Amino acid sequence: MTGLHVRSLLVTGANRGIGLGLVRHFLAMTNPPKWVFATCRDPKGERAQKLQNLASKHPNLVIITLEVSDPASIKAAAARVGEQLGGSGLNLLINNAGVVNLNTLDNETLEDMTQVYTTNTVGPLLMGQAFLPLLKKAAQGSPGSVLSCSKAAIVNMSSIGGSIQELYLWDQANVVSYRCSKVALNMLTKCQSQGYREHGILCVALHPGWVQTDMGSAAGHTHRAGGR
Amino acid sequence: MTGLHVRSLLVTGANRGIGLGLVRHFLAMTNPPKWVFATCRDPKGERAQKLQNLASKHPNLVIITLEVSDPASIKAAAARVGEQLGGSGLNLLINNAGVVNLNTLDNETLEDMTQVYTTNTVGPLLMGQAFLPLLKKAAQGSPGSVLSCSKAAIVNMSSIGGSIQELYLWDQANVVSYRCSKVALNMLTKCQSQGYREHGILCVALHPGWVQTDMGSAAGHTHRAGGR
Repeated sequence: MTGLHVRSLLVTGANRGIGLGLVRHFLAMTNPPKWVFATCRDPKGERAQKLQNLASKHPNLVIITLEVSDPASIKAAAARVGEQLGGSGLNLLINNAGVVNLNTLDNETLEDMTQVYTTNTVGPLLMGQAFLPLLKKAAQGSPGSVLSCSKAAIVNMSSIGGSIQELYLWDQANVVSYRCSKVALNMLTKCQSQGYREHGILCVALHPGWVQTDMGSAAGHTHRAGGR
Repeated sequence: MTGLHVRSLLVTGANRGIGLGLVRHFLAMTNPPKWVFATCRDPKGERAQKLQNLASKHPNLVIITLEVSDPASIKAAAARVGEQLGGSGLNLLINNAGVVNLNTLDNETLEDMTQVYTTNTVGPLLMGQAFLPLLKKAAQGSPGSVLSCSKAAIVNMSSIGGSIQELYLWDQANVVSYRCSKVALNMLTKCQSQGYREHGILCVALHPGWVQTDMGSAAGHTHRAGGR
C-alpha cells in the first residue's frame, strides 16, 4: 500500500464541525494536497472565521461560496474550481454539508422534509454531476485501474441515522426528515458508484460516528472533529 | 386465523393500476368493507372513468379528490372521510399513489428529485399524520392487542427499486429520484411502525412486484392489477 496522496480535494460545509476537521487534517498531512477547496454558505460570516484564519496560513486553501441546495451556486463553484485547477482534475469530492431539524413524527412538515432532502440528498447528486468532468479528468490522469481517493472519489457523509434496521436513538430524536434524507443518500451513493465506476471514480458513504459538533451537540461520543 | 375483515379503507392513486386493482379486490370480497374510499387527483377526468363506473354499481365506494403532495388537499380529504364514517374509525390506509420519471443519473434535476420525493415519500408521511385520529379510533374500537389490517394499519406501496442492495435493473432505468424516494419510504414506514405501534396501528411497506400498469408498462411481470 502506497498510502493516501490526494493532490486536490473539495469539502462542503467546511467552516465547522466535521468539514473543518477534515480540512485541518488534509492541510496537516506530510504530503498535503496542492489544493484544498473548502466551501461554505457564507465565507465572510462570523461562523467561517476559523476557516478564514486557516486560509491566511495555508496558501493552498481556497475558500469558495457554495449553497448545495442551489444548482446555480453549485455550477458557479465548479467553474471556479476548474479555473483554479487549470488543466488538472479534482481527486476527491467530500459531500459533507448537511442539516438536521428536530421535528417529531407528529409535527414533521412538507417544508422541512423538502429542505432537509434538498441539502442532504439532492445536493450531493448535483455536486456529483457538476464536478464529474473534473473527477473524470483526475481519474484519466492517474495510472492504474484500482479505484481510490488518490485517483478520483466521491465521499458522501452519511449517518447511522440512515439505517432502517437500527432506527438509532428513535426515542430521543425522531428526526424523520433526517433519517429519510440519509437513507436516500446511501441509495444515491450506490447509484453513483454504479454509474461512475466506468469513469474510474470511487463512490462511498461514510458514517463518521456521533461527533461533538454544533449539529451533534455536546452529547456526541467522539471529540469535536474541528478541534482535532 | 379469522381472516381479513376490513370495515373501512382508503386507497390513494385508486383510479388505475394497482390502486384500482385493490379497490376492485376489496369490493369483490364476500365480506366487503362498509366503506371503500378511493382517492385520485381528478375524479371527474377521463382517467378516472373506470372508478366512476365502479362507484355507480357499489354504493359503498366513495370517490374523493386528493393530491397527496398538497397538505391542504390531504386535510380536506381526511375531514371528508371522517364525516362519512360518522363516529367510526378507518381500519386501513393504503398509500399507493406514486410517480416515476425516467431520468438518468446524469440528467436528474432538483425539480424532479423534489417532485418525486414529495409524492412518493412526503405524501405518505402527511397522510399518516392526517388520518392518525381515524386510525387510532379504529384501533381503539377493535378488541385484542394483535396488530392487523382488520384493526388499524398503514400500508405503504414501496418497490424493489428501493433496495440499495439490489439496485434492480439499473442499466435499463437509472431512475435515481424514484429509488431514493422508495428507500426513504421504507425508512418512513419503519419510523411510522415505531411511532404508531403504541396506538395499535400496524405499518408495513410492500413491494407489489413489477406490474403491467401505466407506470409499469407492458413489460411488467405480473398481469395488470386493474384487470383482475
